[in-house]
Amino acid sequence: MDPDNLAKAFVDHYYSTFDNNRPSLAGLYQDASMLTFEGQKIQGASNIVAKLTSLPFQQCHHSISTVDCQPSGASGGMLVFVSGSLQLAGEQHTLKFSQMFHLMPTPQASYYVLNDIFRLNYA
Amino acid sequence: MDPDNLAKAFVDHYYSTFDNNRPSLAGLYQDASMLTFEGQKIQGASNIVAKLTSLPFQQCHHSISTVDCQPSGASGGMLVFVSGSLQLAGEQHTLKFSQMFHLMPTPQASYYVLNDIFRLNYA
Repeated sequence: MDPDNLAKAFVDHYYSTFDNNRPSLAGLYQDASMLTFEGQKIQGASNIVAKLTSLPFQQCHHSISTVDCQPSGASGGMLVFVSGSLQLAGEQHTLKFSQMFHLMPTPQASYYVLNDIFRLNYA
Repeated sequence: MDPDNLAKAFVDHYYSTFDNNRPSLAGLYQDASMLTFEGQKIQGASNIVAKLTSLPFQQCHHSISTVDCQPSGASGGMLVFVSGSLQLAGEQHTLKFSQMFHLMPTPQASYYVLNDIFRLNYA
């Protein structure tokens, strides 16, 4: 698959899982995975999913504005850079965010998230 | 040097060079370097600097809001994620931006930019 299409497919899958079945994000991370969420550093699939499932909102919807990708130079790795907005249930305004992922191939011809950095873009 | 301090030092150096002596950014890129600037893909130090020096503004000032970093898993590589705002000379409003860099070590115990993705965050 073309890298841009692969990046878009990953992004669609990631945010759809986040919005509809957040605990299932565990399948996208491994023990070596790192998340920096609004400056907080978390390592390992179980800690990362514990963080993401304990965020102070239950229902949300991500809308994606842009997806950029580049090969990372690490054996088969791919950098994916996303900008978009986040609508929380019951809130009138949306929050803008930027997020980057470093995807690494798995032996099963799939990808896992090695690096994940998330920031809200305050106006 | 601590990775967070190294990332901050790189970011200070990068944007100070961008704002004061843009052609000198050439020293931070190599032939394998990739830039995706607002979706446009550019490769190689000379093409990247040609792009950055031909942007439709001469004077600008970057203000940095956040800097996050993680090791990339590629031999000594470091991912740096920046959010901030950009003031163009003569313009009243600032533009918010997000940018990510993948820094790789050089034999001279320095770093070059292998990956660079830049996006303005439209309100």
